[in-house]
Amino acid sequence: LKITNIQKKKKNAICHRTQESLLSSGSGYKNYRGVINWCVVMLVLSNARLFLENLLRYGVLADPTQVIPLFLKDPYSWPAMCLLIVSNVFILVALYTERQLSKGSFSELVGFLLHCINMAVMLTFPAAVVLLVPSVTPVGGAVVLGTYTILLLKLYSYKDVNLWCREMSTQKAKKLARSLSCKSQTLLHCEQQVCYPGNLTLKDIYYFTFAPTLCYELNFPRSPNIRMSFMFRRLFEMLFFTQLLVGLTQQWMIPVIQSSMKPLEDMDLSRMTERLLRLAVPNHLLWLLFFYWFFHSSLNFTAELLRFGDRQFYKDWWNSETVTYFWQNWNIPVHKWCIRHFYKPLLRKGFSKMVSQSAVFFLSAFFHEYLVSVPLRMFRLWAFMGMMAQLPLAWFVGRFLRGNYGNAAVWLSLIIGQPIAVLMYVHDYYVLNYGQETN
Amino acid sequence: LKITNIQKKKKNAICHRTQESLLSSGSGYKNYRGVINWCVVMLVLSNARLFLENLLRYGVLADPTQVIPLFLKDPYSWPAMCLLIVSNVFILVALYTERQLSKGSFSELVGFLLHCINMAVMLTFPAAVVLLVPSVTPVGGAVVLGTYTILLLKLYSYKDVNLWCREMSTQKAKKLARSLSCKSQTLLHCEQQVCYPGNLTLKDIYYFTFAPTLCYELNFPRSPNIRMSFMFRRLFEMLFFTQLLVGLTQQWMIPVIQSSMKPLEDMDLSRMTERLLRLAVPNHLLWLLFFYWFFHSSLNFTAELLRFGDRQFYKDWWNSETVTYFWQNWNIPVHKWCIRHFYKPLLRKGFSKMVSQSAVFFLSAFFHEYLVSVPLRMFRLWAFMGMMAQLPLAWFVGRFLRGNYGNAAVWLSLIIGQPIAVLMYVHDYYVLNYGQETN
Repeated sequence: LKITNIQKKKKNAICHRTQESLLSSGSGYKNYRGVINWCVVMLVLSNARLFLENLLRYGVLADPTQVIPLFLKDPYSWPAMCLLIVSNVFILVALYTERQLSKGSFSELVGFLLHCINMAVMLTFPAAVVLLVPSVTPVGGAVVLGTYTILLLKLYSYKDVNLWCREMSTQKAKKLARSLSCKSQTLLHCEQQVCYPGNLTLKDIYYFTFAPTLCYELNFPRSPNIRMSFMFRRLFEMLFFTQLLVGLTQQWMIPVIQSSMKPLEDMDLSRMTERLLRLAVPNHLLWLLFFYWFFHSSLNFTAELLRFGDRQFYKDWWNSETVTYFWQNWNIPVHKWCIRHFYKPLLRKGFSKMVSQSAVFFLSAFFHEYLVSVPLRMFRLWAFMGMMAQLPLAWFVGRFLRGNYGNAAVWLSLIIGQPIAVLMYVHDYYVLNYGQETN
Repeated sequence: LKITNIQKKKKNAICHRTQESLLSSGSGYKNYRGVINWCVVMLVLSNARLFLENLLRYGVLADPTQVIPLFLKDPYSWPAMCLLIVSNVFILVALYTERQLSKGSFSELVGFLLHCINMAVMLTFPAAVVLLVPSVTPVGGAVVLGTYTILLLKLYSYKDVNLWCREMSTQKAKKLARSLSCKSQTLLHCEQQVCYPGNLTLKDIYYFTFAPTLCYELNFPRSPNIRMSFMFRRLFEMLFFTQLLVGLTQQWMIPVIQSSMKPLEDMDLSRMTERLLRLAVPNHLLWLLFFYWFFHSSLNFTAELLRFGDRQFYKDWWNSETVTYFWQNWNIPVHKWCIRHFYKPLLRKGFSKMVSQSAVFFLSAFFHEYLVSVPLRMFRLWAFMGMMAQLPLAWFVGRFLRGNYGNAAVWLSLIIGQPIAVLMYVHDYYVLNYGQETN
């Protein structure tokens, strides 16, 4: 026993050996897994603090009843609702034109002109109503214009696909055409597949109108049945996140925006920066919530209800290391439409990739501006410039930043870029509508 | 060409396939690498905002000259400095006792009693001076008591190791003893190795006093030479982080603490929570800075200067998934001392692991309280209770939380636990010293 004790003490007595500290570069140590958890804990705590401070300073501001006046100014005039009902006319015109084209009653030129007129009216008529009818609120106007824009893109796709079907038939490549409209892989179900011109029905075009996609196809992939639990979970998320979005906007965004008006009017740079950073966090969280609410909950709910099979409404944009990757992956319905009906046709017409890509950004910038400026009745080009600024930003990030740095740059441009545009519009709207009163 | 165009259009026309959204659990998608970057960007932005807000509200508060009065109340009386000089007496007493013991002039009992008296005086004498001399400031007192505590632990280790050497010699296990004091592995350098009682020199004990370890060893591992660039980088870090620590404390901690006094006096719970969370972030960042400043920069600088080979001053506590792992790895010098001179001797005396571990926490809690209460001249047991609360916390985390959840719990207890104790002491100190004036 004594000897064992001595051996133990001997082992004890030597308790140092030559070695580097872990944080010295010489140690070769690299495991900072815990730092990720640290980041999460710090973020949760910081925002819990902000939430508590906000409650203490402002009290509870969230009030669901305040949402109604955003849509309704005059309870006896529902211009936005009327516009939504009128939109059916454009769907019927498109269907009628395609039917006449398929029967050969219209020449291709007449059909093309009719489609062009139809779509031009879709773009200008609601904009004119929103601009000229005083009882349209900004929120109501934005909803109407958004719906019309989506419908416009859908009908453009409808026209294109039907044209392709006719081209394939007339060029006597009937085998190809049949294998297109009735997929040869699914021979067993071929009796259920629709072939051109069998698709030109009211039921078909209305299914496409409500389906969560902008690209028309004769035979959409369908899921075998409606999964009830999945659908109700998405429905619950939709309702819950709607409440959360409205509540957070009232409680968090509006006080910050209101307190930013004074520094913005005075052009006090350091206070403006402080307000901008203060706005960036709630704005970004609301955008993330909106993304989940719209692209995951709402579109999946609609798809489940309509047994629409393709649920790829977004890809992994959160890992994007370039700005281009982000724009290609965060909004798949629009991206798919742009590629299929704008970018590839431009390439086929002989334009270079660079020009076509810039044209896509230009089109996107136009619609961003259209959807913001018209409802606010204020033409400032901030949204347009914000979208166009993505081109040099994409070049810069792609050229100089790689991997995690590129990813961080994309996040930074999202978190900082949006609130700049929001502040610009809010400031101009405030000056235009309330500025004169205070002076 | 026409056929190719048709094939292209055919490929275009089918652009949907049945698939799940990435965020649906059915997709099996798991890559959220970008979320880590998101956390980092959000943390940097949030704190940039806080920093700017702080500057706008308080202006520049950092002022290096304000540090001097923390150490010096009366410029003609330097009690803290005198105490530091007096500490040499205790080193000399320990060396003298060991020399007499090695020569056999003192019996083991006399030597043991002398060591006990020496260490008891080391514990009580500076505490008495700090409590009774009014010109000792809290910061000066804390520095003095910290130095004396470190010296006490070192001399305890010195006494123990020399005792082990004598025990091994007297038990005629000379071969073992020689292989202990002169490591057999390093036979080539054996002429440079020191054997008992050749280690009982002034040079040896003063090297141990300044070496960055609390555990005595006859032959410390030494690095072959001083790496100048490494040493100067650590020196630069030491100086830079000292400035940063002082500046951040003045600019960030003190305003928050001052604004917390009112809610604490009123016992306003929601405002107290808000202040606590507001204090948690700067307190935690300062603690992290302090950790790096002391355990990496300062100890590595000292070690490099003294060619001390063992640089393991901390292990990977940031990945710790249990509270116990954290306490075993964040402060290796103290942990090593506790294991070698307190925990293992207790085990050898037949105590259970549970009791020994609790005893270590109890000793640690005593010294935490000693180092805070005496300089503040205020006995409140908050630090003691904070340390003792680690035992149930360790049990809870070890029992119920695993992996990342355990890691997050450790971080949370660090980030939240410390500022609670800080607020308690500051509040009591404030009430005791400034409370009467305002009433």
